[in-house]
Formats: sequence, C-alpha cells, structure tokens
Amino acid sequence: MPAGKDLVMVTNDDGVHSEGLVELARAASKHAEVVVVAPDSPQSATALSLTFHKPLRVSKLKGAEFETYAVSGTPGDCVMIGVNKILRRRPKLVASGINIGDNDTYQDILASGTVAAALESAIAGIPAIAFSMEVEEEFLFSVGYSSPDFAKAARVAGGIVGDVLRHGMPEGAEALNVNFPAKVGPSPRMALTAVARRKYTDGVIVRKDPRGRPYYWLFGEKLSAFPSDTDAEAVLVNREVSVTPITLNFSGPITRDLEGLKRRVEAGLRQGDAAPHE
Amino acid sequence: MPAGKDLVMVTNDDGVHSEGLVELARAASKHAEVVVVAPDSPQSATALSLTFHKPLRVSKLKGAEFETYAVSGTPGDCVMIGVNKILRRRPKLVASGINIGDNDTYQDILASGTVAAALESAIAGIPAIAFSMEVEEEFLFSVGYSSPDFAKAARVAGGIVGDVLRHGMPEGAEALNVNFPAKVGPSPRMALTAVARRKYTDGVIVRKDPRGRPYYWLFGEKLSAFPSDTDAEAVLVNREVSVTPITLNFSGPITRDLEGLKRRVEAGLRQGDAAPHE
Repeated sequence: MPAGKDLVMVTNDDGVHSEGLVELARAASKHAEVVVVAPDSPQSATALSLTFHKPLRVSKLKGAEFETYAVSGTPGDCVMIGVNKILRRRPKLVASGINIGDNDTYQDILASGTVAAALESAIAGIPAIAFSMEVEEEFLFSVGYSSPDFAKAARVAGGIVGDVLRHGMPEGAEALNVNFPAKVGPSPRMALTAVARRKYTDGVIVRKDPRGRPYYWLFGEKLSAFPSDTDAEAVLVNREVSVTPITLNFSGPITRDLEGLKRRVEAGLRQGDAAPHE
Repeated sequence: MPAGKDLVMVTNDDGVHSEGLVELARAASKHAEVVVVAPDSPQSATALSLTFHKPLRVSKLKGAEFETYAVSGTPGDCVMIGVNKILRRRPKLVASGINIGDNDTYQDILASGTVAAALESAIAGIPAIAFSMEVEEEFLFSVGYSSPDFAKAARVAGGIVGDVLRHGMPEGAEALNVNFPAKVGPSPRMALTAVARRKYTDGVIVRKDPRGRPYYWLFGEKLSAFPSDTDAEAVLVNREVSVTPITLNFSGPITRDLEGLKRRVEAGLRQGDAAPHE
C-alpha cells in the first residue's frame, strides 16, 4: 500500500539471499516502494567498514521478488552506493536485516554490520532501523539458515516500518535498533530499552596445534542476567521485542576533571617536560 | 619512571612495526611498565571486528625495544588476548596508536581500528586512550610511513598518559580520543571537543572496466568547515591537539514519541493487522 510512494531501501549483512532480508522487504513493501541493495556475500561482524581501497561491483538480480542489487562490499558500502548511485530518489527510510542473530549490547552493536548500515544511514541524515533476531546456538553458523519465525518477526518489523513512515522517526532518535527473541508470537510485547554493555564474558582458549605451536581462540559465554530496561534483558530474559533509540553521540561531558588534565598537560609541555609531577 | 609499576598495554591498527606505535610506547614507558600487543599486519578500517571464527597466532618479537607481541588479528583481538592471556596483570591503561591519519568525526571513529581498541577496552572496564595523527594526503597510503612529527606528537601523548595514570580517567569519560594535526610544535594548544558528524562528502564514481562492465569506487572529499568545539574543527581548522571524552552511550532518550510508536504498533498487532491506519 505505497502511501504517497515513500521509498524504503532494504539492506542487511547476511547477504542478498538471506531469508531474513526477503521477509523484511515483503513486510516493508506493504507500506512503501522497496529497493533492495545488499552485500553479495555474508558480511557479519564487519562493523562499519567502508571499502575505499578497491572498486566494487553491483549486479542486478534477475527474477528477484523486489528490485534487488547485490554489491561486492559491506553493508556500509551498500548504503553509500545505494543512496548515491542506485536509488532513483532519496529513500525515506533504510531498513537493515532481519539479521541472523540478535544485536544487543555494545559488544554486539559495535561489531555488527546490520547496525552499521543503520549508523551509516544516520550519518547521511537518513532515518534507519536495524532488525535482528535471536537464533538458537545450534543454527547460528549453519549455511542458508531458514526459519518460519522470520516471517513472524517481519510482521512486527512491518508494523514498525509503517509507523515510522507515517509518524517520522521518534524525537531523540536518529535510528532504531530492534531485536527479536528466537520465538515471536502473534502479539508480542515490545520494550523500549537502552543498550546494555556486554552480553558475553571475555574468554581466550590456548591450545597446541599438531606441530606443538600454541594457537589462541576467542570465545565468550553468554551472560544470564543484564541491567534492567536494557536490550539484552528484554530479548534474552523477558522474551520481548526490544526497541532501542540510537543517537550518534559518543561524546562525554567536558568536566572540570578534563579541564584539569588539559591545564596540567599544557603546563608540563610549556615547561619542556612531558611529565610534570605536581 | 614506573610510578608504582603501573602497567600500560600499547596497541594500534597499523601493525606492530609502525613508527607511531614505537614512539607511543617510548612516551608511555616514561610513566609505566609497557607491554606492546599489536596486530602483525595493518588493520586499518577494521572497526571493532573480533575474530571468533578462526584461531589466532601470537608471536613474541625478538630484539624489540619493548616486550612486544604480534597477533594475527584485529586491534579488538589484541585487547582481548592481551588482557586475558598475555599480560601478567591487569593494565591500568590501554594506549592505542599513534595512528597514521586522524580519527575525528563519527565517519572516521566508527570505522577506525585504533579507536575500536579503546572501545573494546572500555567495554572490558579498562581506561583507554586512542591517539591518531593527521598525515598529509600524499603520504597516507605509503608503505612504512615515517615522520619526525610522530615523536613530537608522542611527547604530548606521554603527557596525557602520565596525567591519566596519576589522576585517573576524567569523570564522565570511559576513554579519550586524541587527535594531532600534521604539525605539532613544542607547546601545542589542546582543545576539549565533541565528535563532529562527518568529515567527507559521500561520493561514488562509476567507470567502465576494459571489458565495458561498470565498477563503482567510493570516495569522499574532505569538508573545510566543521561545527564549533568539535574534534575535526580543532585538528583540521584550528591546528590544535583535540581531546574528546568518549562514553559508551548510544542510547537516545525514551521519549513520548517512542512510547506512541510502541502503543500504535502493539495495538495494530493485537488487531491482527501489521499496519493500522489511525
């Protein structure tokens, strides 16, 4: 039901063939014209990488359900190329996902390609929503992951996309980060949340290879408790759909402490000493 | 002059052989014991990638000026492996840099490996400082870039490291992002700044390859003006050393707008309609 022919660009980091992407495009197409511009191969955990050092290819997919372009780059590349070269007009919204695996907590968000596409859009001044869905561990690394729950999550995603198209991005948010639990009912509870800090313990295992040389393997065990009103608590403990407003604002306050640091370091440098001992 | 034998871990994203890293380690070693744990090859623009899908190697460098370990991974990997497996005790500070090229504005920061190492440290609860230095365009992609100005910048970096070791991280900051202009005098002005949004225009050039197929190349032209009191203005316009307090807080406020979105979408789902028209 294209209301005034709004244009929504759909992207992701799992690649153009991911079922989560197709379901999200279907849901968005009930509210707007949809063009898909997504990586031609999985780009998980690429964070906000942009490809400046080599050229990129763009292929139009034949026989796709929506006008679909596959880009030989990252989700951030897809936003830059999509907005500047592929789309015939500026999109009203960029929708990214539905990612295979939830992207809650700063540990996930800062490494996520799905969220990176939304951040790149926000930098360009285009409202964006990232959608990600918890997947049971055993399926997380399977190739061609498929789940009937993507369609259920996409129904909720469609509701959120439609609402933002009609009412605009909520005040105070430049993007939304939406996470679904692994199971989504027909009328799930939604929670408005802040970003939790961490989802995993830090772990590094050291083993010996067949030649006796050590190798290191990073891993993390999932925590079971999270601060109240955070994305991870909502999704992983309360089994709610988490909606987090995101602002591009990392800057801390300019405190008297910081002014003291500046004063002391400048004074030390003037005295020709990099390390004044007050 | 190890004051109470504080331990500082030094890392970067240009790799263990970068001159900026060596100068930073030298400057930090005037204030603390230094151990270097850095990527074995350049990892620029890897953002906060972590390597979970394959093992990593760690090699101790022979004949290095400081105890130095080269890791076959990203800056984030170096922090995880360094803190959890290599260092004999928890570092009081992680210092990352000095990066070849300034990392100011969200466009740079969100893609930067140098800043990612500081963010990964902050997630782990360890104070961190990222140091980056503007480099004239012609040198930016030269292999083995070397500059006498790294030593001048490192003198200032040493002052900041020493101050944070003595006085603690300034209140309200979890990390500091420090950027130097290309030329640093003996007593440079320091500016306390917020992060600007963008440093480049978005550009994509489309050309034809020798077979006539199009290729796309991302580029951006550097802007010449930035908002007041931002990192980019300080470094690129005012030629000051920019110090930006960083907090891990992307979350926007939970506004009435956002509560309206939740109410409308939940109501639509209860009515069995993903797209209620109010």
